[in-house]
Amino acid sequence: MRVKYDEMKLLFGDILVSRGFSKEKAAKTAEIFTDNSADGVYSHGLNRFSRFISYVETGHIDPHAEPIMEDCFGLFQRWNGNLGAGCTNAMLAMEAAVASAKSYGIGCVAMRNTNHWMRGGTYGLMAARAGFAAICWTNTFPNMPSWGAKTANLGNNPLVMAFPGKDGEIVIDGAMAQYSYGALENCHMNENLLPFPGGYDKEGQLTTNPGAILETLRVLPIGLWKGSGYSLLLDLLGAALSKGKTVPEIGRTGEEAGLTQVFIAFDVNTLSGKAYVEAMTAKLLEDFKSAEPTECGVSFYYPGERMAKIRNENMELGIPVNEAVWNQLLTLRR
Amino acid sequence: MRVKYDEMKLLFGDILVSRGFSKEKAAKTAEIFTDNSADGVYSHGLNRFSRFISYVETGHIDPHAEPIMEDCFGLFQRWNGNLGAGCTNAMLAMEAAVASAKSYGIGCVAMRNTNHWMRGGTYGLMAARAGFAAICWTNTFPNMPSWGAKTANLGNNPLVMAFPGKDGEIVIDGAMAQYSYGALENCHMNENLLPFPGGYDKEGQLTTNPGAILETLRVLPIGLWKGSGYSLLLDLLGAALSKGKTVPEIGRTGEEAGLTQVFIAFDVNTLSGKAYVEAMTAKLLEDFKSAEPTECGVSFYYPGERMAKIRNENMELGIPVNEAVWNQLLTLRR
Repeated sequence: MRVKYDEMKLLFGDILVSRGFSKEKAAKTAEIFTDNSADGVYSHGLNRFSRFISYVETGHIDPHAEPIMEDCFGLFQRWNGNLGAGCTNAMLAMEAAVASAKSYGIGCVAMRNTNHWMRGGTYGLMAARAGFAAICWTNTFPNMPSWGAKTANLGNNPLVMAFPGKDGEIVIDGAMAQYSYGALENCHMNENLLPFPGGYDKEGQLTTNPGAILETLRVLPIGLWKGSGYSLLLDLLGAALSKGKTVPEIGRTGEEAGLTQVFIAFDVNTLSGKAYVEAMTAKLLEDFKSAEPTECGVSFYYPGERMAKIRNENMELGIPVNEAVWNQLLTLRR
Repeated sequence: MRVKYDEMKLLFGDILVSRGFSKEKAAKTAEIFTDNSADGVYSHGLNRFSRFISYVETGHIDPHAEPIMEDCFGLFQRWNGNLGAGCTNAMLAMEAAVASAKSYGIGCVAMRNTNHWMRGGTYGLMAARAGFAAICWTNTFPNMPSWGAKTANLGNNPLVMAFPGKDGEIVIDGAMAQYSYGALENCHMNENLLPFPGGYDKEGQLTTNPGAILETLRVLPIGLWKGSGYSLLLDLLGAALSKGKTVPEIGRTGEEAGLTQVFIAFDVNTLSGKAYVEAMTAKLLEDFKSAEPTECGVSFYYPGERMAKIRNENMELGIPVNEAVWNQLLTLRR
């Protein structure tokens, strides 16, 4: 079944207000969740919403909390997320990074003590829509074994890179694991197999069965030992800049709360001239799309390009939802 | 056979001076190449040296060129590498990024029109040894097909992340392909198979045969579609900041020359306090190393850790060299 954008956003907003969010914060949060689903990232939209509410109910997300800036050194700011909602915290952090980049060319905000930001692409898109390039990442609960390890000791620490484009933003939002947990859960819920091996089953065999990987949490890092290494370095740099918790420290709390995130914005249009940046981008994307495909008739899409097509379809026809998930959410309305 | 560090460096220096490098620049360049081999990165040390000299002889590397700063906006500098030697250019760029980070907390140097930097880890190590965290990347000749493409249209665009450590620097230097060309060539030269599939053979089948991949240039991106996406975004951001050539533009010149690189340094010790950074790093590495291995008795090394062990061995016993490669280099001395 499909649900209209406004109907979904209204439901999310009502539930959030009933759980103590201010009208303004509920509206922003509802918009982010609805946008994630509208953009086709169902795993971090509707399908994640009830878990978000359960974190509010257990007190891991504080609906009243506001993030505050703790330190500022010119272009660099350190914020405390005060365990507020990860998505609105991350919005404020990226807004601050963009504002700082307007003054300094480059801006960086490191935030500690925040929560899951849902879809990292949201904040990359925000920056790119404002005309800025961005790099941002988050750490997570230990949910990926380092290369050669049996149990999850690293985060899959999603790394986002975003760039403005005249015909749509170029945004990659990728976990350091071959598949994010959102992707695994989505695939599992739809009873599909993964197109490529995504991790190990409990016998230690590589598998394309998302359910088997969700049992072991032994997801495969991208590039095997490489993704394992990048994950560690992202955690190190994030904790150093934010003074926040590392992945193992989050693990010791027993909950995926109190995360560490970094937001870097680049004012590429001011640093290099908008005309130059636009022409270079258009040409590079043209080159990218003119590649010779392995299979006849295949088209190439740059990261983020298909999202716009999915969004247009979902805005017109409604957002596809799993009926059971939708009905369960309806019961959360008070 | 093994060759002493000083003997190798002397040979490199002599050859460089005979090809027009000043004594000072020859010494620096010889040191970088020798260090790469001493650190165990043979592919970008001794084994790459004769190709470097051939690029000097064909005029793609100008031994007399000095990089110049073309623009400066506070923490951000744009440099023209003037087609000088990539390794000394990159050294100067990272030195400038570190100096800028000393003033601003974060420093960024984008360099256009430079050449292959050999081992990217060199510049990460430089920053980390000076007490700075760093992110840097380079683009390349088109040498990796985008996900689903038949021919190489992206670069493998190595991405380096480095962090200072009390007991050794933490440095990851990884191509966006599962194996760098250096790694493929090294493995091919030693007549080994790759431990994991690294690309496609000319029949379009995944293979562990490095020679078959060197024929097709169809290397596998890390994380499949993900590495393909990161490669494109790194190229975009690099070209935007440096005003340098994109990967397809380098491809159209027909030579891997005139590359684009970005160097970002973070003064983590000043931004967050040295005592905090050191304690956090030590604890995170301790956590990392205490993982449960899949195979009994396996130890975990953080990225860069084994390098120090290899270096100590090579400094004591001499650097292992392929005899044919060494003898060929001896013939370049004039």
